[in-house]
Order: sequence, then C-alpha cells, then structure tokens
Amino acid sequence: MAAITQEALKWISEEYYDLNGSHYETLESLPSPLEFSQLVHCACPKALARWTDEYLAKACGDNLISVALTPNGRADAITRGPDDRLYFAEPFVRQMTVADFLSKISTDRDAQEEVVYLQSQDGNLYSSTPGVDSEFESLLTDVPPQLSFCTEALGAPPEAVNLWIGDSRSVTSIHSDPYENIYTVIRGSKTFTVFPPTEGWCMNERVYPHAAYERLVEGEPLILVASPPSNPPVRWSSIQDPNDANVLPPEAHPIHITVNAGESLYLPAGWWHYVTQSEVTIAVNYWYDMESRGSGWVWLNLLRGGDSNSPPPGNEGDEFVDGSEEDEEEQEESAGN
Amino acid sequence: MAAITQEALKWISEEYYDLNGSHYETLESLPSPLEFSQLVHCACPKALARWTDEYLAKACGDNLISVALTPNGRADAITRGPDDRLYFAEPFVRQMTVADFLSKISTDRDAQEEVVYLQSQDGNLYSSTPGVDSEFESLLTDVPPQLSFCTEALGAPPEAVNLWIGDSRSVTSIHSDPYENIYTVIRGSKTFTVFPPTEGWCMNERVYPHAAYERLVEGEPLILVASPPSNPPVRWSSIQDPNDANVLPPEAHPIHITVNAGESLYLPAGWWHYVTQSEVTIAVNYWYDMESRGSGWVWLNLLRGGDSNSPPPGNEGDEFVDGSEEDEEEQEESAGN
Ligand SMILES: O=C(O)CCC(=O)C(=O)O
Ligand SMILES: O=C(O)CCC(=O)C(=O)O
Repeated sequence: MAAITQEALKWISEEYYDLNGSHYETLESLPSPLEFSQLVHCACPKALARWTDEYLAKACGDNLISVALTPNGRADAITRGPDDRLYFAEPFVRQMTVADFLSKISTDRDAQEEVVYLQSQDGNLYSSTPGVDSEFESLLTDVPPQLSFCTEALGAPPEAVNLWIGDSRSVTSIHSDPYENIYTVIRGSKTFTVFPPTEGWCMNERVYPHAAYERLVEGEPLILVASPPSNPPVRWSSIQDPNDANVLPPEAHPIHITVNAGESLYLPAGWWHYVTQSEVTIAVNYWYDMESRGSGWVWLNLLRGGDSNSPPPGNEGDEFVDGSEEDEEEQEESAGN
Repeated sequence: MAAITQEALKWISEEYYDLNGSHYETLESLPSPLEFSQLVHCACPKALARWTDEYLAKACGDNLISVALTPNGRADAITRGPDDRLYFAEPFVRQMTVADFLSKISTDRDAQEEVVYLQSQDGNLYSSTPGVDSEFESLLTDVPPQLSFCTEALGAPPEAVNLWIGDSRSVTSIHSDPYENIYTVIRGSKTFTVFPPTEGWCMNERVYPHAAYERLVEGEPLILVASPPSNPPVRWSSIQDPNDANVLPPEAHPIHITVNAGESLYLPAGWWHYVTQSEVTIAVNYWYDMESRGSGWVWLNLLRGGDSNSPPPGNEGDEFVDGSEEDEEEQEESAGN
C-alpha cells in the first residue's frame, strides 16, 4: 500500500487547482478524433426527439426490462439499515414492460410510491461482453453502437452503452469510474457535480458492508437486507450529497454542469460525479475503457489513497481482512460519519 | 511541499512497472497526428545524407557558432571542483566557425585536447522566443521548422529545434525535461538510457551550487569557478552514470535505446535520460511544450519529490534558503555522495 499522506494529497489537489481552476469547455460541434484525443472536456449535441413515451412503449412492446427499485431513489448509495448500521445498498431489481415502467415515473405519481430507475449500467443497449444481449433490441436502430470520433481517438469500441430513464427522485451518489464517459441527455436535464481526480481525498472513502433491497413478502415495502459474507465490502465515498453545507473540506472545488436535452458531457475517467435530474429524464451514455498504458492508472489509484485493499468502514466493530493498523486508526476517527 | 514519502514513491514506481514493463514500440513509418497523440513512444525515419563535414563547413562559412568546451566532455553535470566540492558545472562557451569546430571532433584528435560539443539547447536552429536568431541560417532549408504530425497532435509548433554535434567523449548527464522530445539522429548513433517519470525518486536529486568552466589566462587549461550567489543552486541527479554497477536501487528499470542515423526517438515529457554517442554524431531534436492542462504537470512534480524549492546538496555545510528540516536530514544521509 502507498504511504501517501493526507498532506501530500492536499498538496496535489492544490497544485492541480492552481493550474487548472474549475474551467470547462463547451464545443458547438463534434470534435474530430484528433481534437477529442486532445480534449479534457467536451460537449456535443445529440437529440432523439422521437423518443416520446408512446414511441418507447410501442417499440419495446411486451419485452421485459430490468428496473432498479428503492424506497428513496438512492440505488448504489450509503444507506442506514434497519439495524442502524451503514451499508452500501444495491436496489431491488424487477422485470417489467417499458409501458409499465414509464407509468411509474409519470409526474402524477403517488408520493408514497417506490422509486424506479432504469440504470442497469451493464451495457443495457450495447455491451462488449459476449453473450450479453440488449434488453432494448427494438431501440438499437435509433442509437449508434459507438461514437466514431471517440472510438477512433481511443482505439477501441465502447465497453458499454447504457440507457438511463428516471425522474427527479433518483440521485446517483458520488463516485468515479475507470471509463471515459460520453453522456448524452435525450429528454429533461441532468446536473453533474464533478470533482477532478486530484480531489479524491476529499470524498472520504470508507469501506461499507454490502446490502440489497428485498421484498420479503409480495405487497409489502422493500427492506434493506445485509448480504452474506460472500459479498465483499464496498469502498465508497461517505459524502451523501456534496452540495450540502460543510460536508467537504475547503480544498474541494465542485464544478456544476447541467446537461440539457441534445447536449453531451465528456466526463474523463477518474473524475468524481454526483448526478441529479429533472422530472422524467432520458439519457444514453458511452463508457470507453481508459488508456491502460502509461502511468494514468497508477495516478488515479494513488489519488484514491493508492490502496485497492480498503480501509475499514464507518461502522465501529466491523472487521475486514485487509485493514492495516493505519487504517484502523482512520476508522476510529471516522466512526459515526 | 508535498509530504510524499519514499515508501509512496517506491509503490508508485512498482505499480507503474507492473503495468507497463520496459516495453517500447518501433514504428516503420511516420504516425498520423492522431496516432501520435495516442503514442507513448515512436521512432520515425529521417535522414540528411548530404550533411557531410564539407557540406556543413561550406554552408556555414565564416558564421560563428556557440560551442560548449569542457576538459572532460561532461557539460551540465555534477563535477568536483578544485576545492573538492561538488558543483553543477556549466561548460565554457566559445564562438568558432563550423569548419574550426568540426576539426576538433575529427577522430585524429589529441587525447589531451579539450572536448567540444555543439549542444546549445536554446533552439540554435529554430526558437519560438522572438528575437532569438538561428546560428545556422544556411542549414535551415535542410531542416523542417516543425514536424506536422507532432504540431497537429500537440496543437502548437515546437518551443525549440536544436542541432547537436559531438563525439564519443561527450556524455549528457541524466535529467528530465518538461518537453515532448522528438530526437532524430542524422549521422552516427546515440544511446539513450531512459527511465519513466515514476522512477524519478531513484535519481537521487540533490541541490548543487552552480559553477562554470572559465579560461582565466588564454592558452591555459579550463578551470571550474564557483558562480556568484546570484546564480541559484541547481537541483540535479547525483547519479553520474546510471549504467555503473550498484548506483541505482533494484527498483529502477533502465531501458536502453540506441538510435541510429535515420531513426528518431519520441521521448515523452518527464522521462529521465542519460545520453552517450558514437564517434562524430549529428542530431536534430524538436522540443514541444508538454500539455499544461490536466494533472500531468502535478504528477511529474510529485514524482520528483513534489518540491520546486529544493533539498540541500551533497556538500556538507552548504546552506540554501529553502531547505526545510526534513531536507536537512536528507542532506546528512547523502553527504559525501
Ligand atoms: O445518470 C446518472 O444517474 C449517473 C451517471 C453515471 O454515474 C455515469 O454515467 O457514470
Ligand atoms: O543528445 C544529447 O547529448 C542529449 C539530448 C537531450 O538531453 C535532450 O534532447 O533532451
């Protein structure tokens, strides 16, 4: 494990900020592969006006799609369980038709209703994993399987192309991915709160036990159930909402980017992002593997604390195999976060 | 200053090496701008067979060029002075004609003779600094002012284009530059011993007082004279020759690349290099500014110890303004290096 100190991480993030500030660029047209390969951020227009509810429901017909259900719109987020412990909570997944799904995100919903979010993140449109079929076969003619400027620049087709459909109740908790991400909004708008990789130390990552929502009795509410020990604990930011007052150190410099229908965001690999959305929002994103040669990967790992084994969680008393003494001290400090 | 520990730097270099090894690629033809912008290394052919001694002498005629003189072929290197202290030694610079210069690097030279090296490094062919004229006006028609694949990929013309002419007595001590470097050998061959930026901690950088060779009496040998305090001390590797046995820790992974006439090396910004050459070697190199956006610069700085202020030298008793307590400890350890 890298003995990278908090002081060093602070220094890195300050140097980065001094050099780069919080600037981002907006492009009026698609970049060439060369321009893209030189870019830090870009935005490129893309609209699918024909994707009305009626069109989507009709195109998908009786096909079943996988939808994430939560009581609160926070799938894949740190959540307090019935035992009062903090967990990394995965949603309950249910199959339903697109028509059924869309009726649940209509604006005249019942306030008590469970929150549905189409957010499967496994390449539900296109996946590079052999044998993974699209749940949206009938929409594929509307969505290019790759973005040529990006595939050419990065030298390989996307790892996954995902369709996201949800409403303002759904929020994606702050995290970073090892993917170059081209995120296109088709209907509604998304607001990304993003931070450079150099501010990863501000995210206060901890290791949380794994849990998933389950419906133990049909018709009853979802409850959060701790997963068996075969599910490894999950390293995740302990920041619930980076826009809350006083949750981030002053060295963090959030950038707020609202992406409207027809616009796209290029979110570089390793950037931290927290995502909220307007009423009924539809988006498609392309995840490209980041460059594995050179030192980019080492750098991103270092900025997360450098350790792929993980420090223990904010839950006092939890014991994980990889905690070193140093980590255990950290645990004590953060207990109760 | 970044509190980056030796342990952390070791971890970074090991991770880098595990991911990347010591591989380099050889291209048979010039890359496109896009290919270049994706590259880590490249080699591209380029020959100027007409650059014989006679041609060069005739083309340059009576024009005076600036030549570096040293007693030992080690300009810009750590050198023991007459007072037995270690200095960063700059060469004595003399103006002479190309014909005169070439006669001094002919192979039938006197073993006692001073070593001449054309290595001005200030864009002696082309410089982007306004008002800096080329000393080789008459050769410019033979040398393109830029490499279009590289200018297009990096988005700006080169900062400097340098002509290097020397013989096997001249060696360039190990260092790194903040430039993307395309280095083309025209006659003879150069051997680069290179290390990735992640192995910077192996270079054992120290701060040395500045000195320069001077000829106090015409006809007398050059002597090394300590510079006045207005010349700031210089941070430099304390490794004289990385190919000597036992001077590097086992974590260092040198890559040896011999570049022959007609070949070019792409040496990425921040890579450490030590350079030797065959009898009479001529080369031209293009220095392009490295990308200043993003975190590349911060990363390179971190890997050098992160400090633009410098730790004290291997000379016991030297006091420099910026030495922190931590640095002073380091000084004690390294005294006598
Ligand atoms: O749209 C969202 O809710 C999250 C998007 C996201 O996290 C991603 O594309 O990596
Ligand atoms: O050719 C040499 O002697 C040194 C070249 C070098 O250091 C450079 O191009 O940066």
